Amino acid sequence: MRNAPLGVFDSGVGGLTVVRALQQLLPAEDIVYLGDTARLPYGSKSPETIRQFSHEDVRFLLDRGVKTVVVACNTATAHALPSLQERYQVPVIGVIEPGVEAVLADEGAQRIGIIATRGTVRSHAYQHALALRRTGLIIHATPAPLLVPLVEEDWLDHPATHAALHTYLDPMLDRGIDTLMLACTHYPLLIPVLKKFLPDSVRLVDSATTCAELVKSRLTELDLLTEKPDTETGSLQIHLTDLSDQFEDLSRRFLSRSPGKIQRVSL
Amino acid sequence: MRNAPLGVFDSGVGGLTVVRALQQLLPAEDIVYLGDTARLPYGSKSPETIRQFSHEDVRFLLDRGVKTVVVACNTATAHALPSLQERYQVPVIGVIEPGVEAVLADEGAQRIGIIATRGTVRSHAYQHALALRRTGLIIHATPAPLLVPLVEEDWLDHPATHAALHTYLDPMLDRGIDTLMLACTHYPLLIPVLKKFLPDSVRLVDSATTCAELVKSRLTELDLLTEKPDTETGSLQIHLTDLSDQFEDLSRRFLSRSPGKIQRVSL
Repeated sequence: MRNAPLGVFDSGVGGLTVVRALQQLLPAEDIVYLGDTARLPYGSKSPETIRQFSHEDVRFLLDRGVKTVVVACNTATAHALPSLQERYQVPVIGVIEPGVEAVLADEGAQRIGIIATRGTVRSHAYQHALALRRTGLIIHATPAPLLVPLVEEDWLDHPATHAALHTYLDPMLDRGIDTLMLACTHYPLLIPVLKKFLPDSVRLVDSATTCAELVKSRLTELDLLTEKPDTETGSLQIHLTDLSDQFEDLSRRFLSRSPGKIQRVSL
Repeated sequence: MRNAPLGVFDSGVGGLTVVRALQQLLPAEDIVYLGDTARLPYGSKSPETIRQFSHEDVRFLLDRGVKTVVVACNTATAHALPSLQERYQVPVIGVIEPGVEAVLADEGAQRIGIIATRGTVRSHAYQHALALRRTGLIIHATPAPLLVPLVEEDWLDHPATHAALHTYLDPMLDRGIDTLMLACTHYPLLIPVLKKFLPDSVRLVDSATTCAELVKSRLTELDLLTEKPDTETGSLQIHLTDLSDQFEDLSRRFLSRSPGKIQRVSL
């Protein structure tokens, strides 16, 4: 079991930002990745549909013998995590808990802005997790549905992206946020434009790194770390339910290197 | 058979613009509509996946006893129409042929701009159909993938939409197009902003009305028009594979009236 692969899934290829962080922290682990590109996005769909798709995603990974499942999708975590954790024997780890940890690592954080898909914002999962851990926080959560297609279009510094960011962020900035949580795996690619856009006083937080740290600590607790030495490089198998040039190109951008051979699969 | 309903499908609710045109032209016909909202959009996905989804959509409609299938989705028409027409007994009518008819109704049309999803542009279906019917046309087809999410966000006159339109349309305008084909069922909602954006010399064409006219003439030829008098109002049943407040609201906007009770279904 210890040498079994880690399973990671997302609605698309944005979750490869989490894979990249896992590979940096746990280089010897093998990883099986599933991106449900045929049915993306999840962020605009209903809780029932997101849960149904998430269960199908996990069953695909379990059929490949994974020892742990990482839900590298904020919307799926927000709507399906408890239901997945209840149903399956293996540990299922989402991106919200580590995101919240990353926000609260700064003890002075008091006014938190969150941008996410409509589904994630509506779930109140981040708002709830933050409020449980620190009293007196002021939280502004805004759905930012255009940011995913803008990133997928590679319009990272386009006037349309600037216009969308003004609409989404100006009201938060007027309210004096000190932290902006990027609560969607697509958003890390916007960090350069966000750094230009936001005042220096606003801290940007994304959950990929802290998610990888949480996976490492859970595997350590459960004695599930691979026995292979850290000098070995684990394999990465990427499975997508739809495959196109665009997804291959996006995979390269999210992973910051060649994704290798990608397999198209049916669920 | 003559009193059986018409079947109409789209990846989402944009196809309701075609339903609206059908109801105006053929008021007594019953209509069964399927929107595959759980898996939308189709426009960014691969030809194989679009064909697989389209066949599943048609089988759903055939199970409900429809006498004709209207493919009210440009991407599905572009990639799946011949395969659907081959497989099933009932007439299957797409939106591309009527769109092309509408463009060529103006005998002076020579420089045609087309905006559509990436999938529709890549299929070359419009370019091919136009080139077959009139020689010497100059055709500029541009994928405009941000326009669907902008319409869904109701940002019809937002600075981000203007910025996107500049990127998509300026190169066409520089080349002196005389006609702009809106080759996606979402785009009719952009007609007001497009009218402000384009010079008066550019004719805007969308296919919903001409598609309804083609359906009427095919039903007449095949003796399949309903026997009910035109003074009766046909029923409309809307089925969506995912249901949310946003889709209900969008349905109202595309249909220009209340969509009635919408049913969530699984394929």
